[in-house]
Amino acid sequence: MSKEQLAKVEAMLRQPRPEGQRSVEELRAGFRALMDTMIVPDDVRTTQTTLGGRPALHVTPDNGARPGTILYFHGGGFVFGSPETALSLTAQLVSKTGFDSYSVDYRLAPEHPFPAGLEDNLSAYRALLDSGLDPSAIAFAGDSAGGGYSVTTALAARDAGLPLPAVIVTFSPGLDATRTGESMTTKDGIDPIFTREAVMHTGAMYLAGQDPEQPLLSPALFADLTGFPPLLIQVGTNEILLDDSTRLAACARDAGVDVILDITADAPHVFQAFAGGTLDEADQALDRAALFLTQHISTP
Amino acid sequence: MSKEQLAKVEAMLRQPRPEGQRSVEELRAGFRALMDTMIVPDDVRTTQTTLGGRPALHVTPDNGARPGTILYFHGGGFVFGSPETALSLTAQLVSKTGFDSYSVDYRLAPEHPFPAGLEDNLSAYRALLDSGLDPSAIAFAGDSAGGGYSVTTALAARDAGLPLPAVIVTFSPGLDATRTGESMTTKDGIDPIFTREAVMHTGAMYLAGQDPEQPLLSPALFADLTGFPPLLIQVGTNEILLDDSTRLAACARDAGVDVILDITADAPHVFQAFAGGTLDEADQALDRAALFLTQHISTP
Repeated sequence: MSKEQLAKVEAMLRQPRPEGQRSVEELRAGFRALMDTMIVPDDVRTTQTTLGGRPALHVTPDNGARPGTILYFHGGGFVFGSPETALSLTAQLVSKTGFDSYSVDYRLAPEHPFPAGLEDNLSAYRALLDSGLDPSAIAFAGDSAGGGYSVTTALAARDAGLPLPAVIVTFSPGLDATRTGESMTTKDGIDPIFTREAVMHTGAMYLAGQDPEQPLLSPALFADLTGFPPLLIQVGTNEILLDDSTRLAACARDAGVDVILDITADAPHVFQAFAGGTLDEADQALDRAALFLTQHISTP
Repeated sequence: MSKEQLAKVEAMLRQPRPEGQRSVEELRAGFRALMDTMIVPDDVRTTQTTLGGRPALHVTPDNGARPGTILYFHGGGFVFGSPETALSLTAQLVSKTGFDSYSVDYRLAPEHPFPAGLEDNLSAYRALLDSGLDPSAIAFAGDSAGGGYSVTTALAARDAGLPLPAVIVTFSPGLDATRTGESMTTKDGIDPIFTREAVMHTGAMYLAGQDPEQPLLSPALFADLTGFPPLLIQVGTNEILLDDSTRLAACARDAGVDVILDITADAPHVFQAFAGGTLDEADQALDRAALFLTQHISTP
């Protein structure tokens, strides 16, 4: 039982914030400060590198990686975040699987709206393939906006005639730029992080006036997932983005994809970031994600 | 990749059967013969015992059990099956978790329609509690009709004022005696085991004219799962019972229950029975079930 842990996490996330819309720089600094408090396991090492023309963070297990590579897409509403802000998540996956990971520093809105970041992520994947990695040894993983990228980068790869990765793991993915999920209203006020207004604000920077009704912006509604690899979707119930996950799971099921919809009650958006002792559910969810990754990464 | 394995399993399940409705004795013998072909891991031992006034099979790891007990409910449409026909599944869970298990030989229809079997399962749970086991160390698990019992026995326990078990794992549960799921028609012909007619036939024996519109007969539609422990639902897409699972998952989500809906594409009803080398997806699904059980069984 960790209801007390959940209450503590929620109270921390609900701390009062400045009134009114914050500037992009304030959003970025606030997110950095929040994610700096997350625990990074100490049995991994990180190296700055480049992948597909963009900076990337290479994360490896201290005692050497086994075959298998996770291409990680950080969260941050397409506007903030970096491989460093997602390091607790990436490092946990590396620590628990023994695979290495590249976390992509894709371009952000509003300076670079859709599809700039997606192009960067596709380039990163192409670079992994060009380096000689077999797609059967590559996983996509990501949280929030990066959870969205873990799906849309696979769609873009298929459109480009590339093979798909072996497995996809998403934490609280953002998958609907039309914002039509019921949870957008039913969880408004329950979600300790997001309001409808806040996600519309950053979402508009990413859209920059483009039509949200397209598969690469709203895959939960418009994507054909036929031929997709096994997909794990983890989400909490205290999220206005909950229905992004439930609808993607239904899409995947209808397309004949192996899909796990893994829901943790009363947990907030990307609760896995509180792993390492703060929230037992976070560690348990990451253990399930690690098992799923190892089950589907083909190691010679 | 085990598409070839899936094709072999499906061909085996589609073997021609005698025309027309089979007698209850023919159904029971046919199911025994099928389940006799399943692989039982050799690192468990079994003992005949009684639990709550009914025969039960006690399954323990060869090298001694760790604290934690799985109360298992076998499948068989409420009309056939026994702890022996489900032994491959029960033994795999025991082997993979290190917990022991009691598999209940509950009374069967048509000789004993609803609620006879449910009463037996509730008595078995009560006997475990009376023996001094803490509910935090007890899991319910079951397949098919027994997957249904893993949910309805918990509902009946709550109605009786008993504490709930710590975790529930169900494989392709039967949860809707009204037979109103869309998959009842969309998967008819795709399901290599069941036809709508066949499940209506055995279902009628269990109902014996009673109203199916009640929580203990159709929990996917009518149960309030508030306060339920974490729930893992595994199901294949080639099942007319698929929507029993998807609707229960939605109920659980709405009730604030931790719930995982774990769908294996192109897999038949209770495909986990083909574990032990016949079907990789079966072993992988059972590994995920074992992790879920160990995450939620509290061991001192």
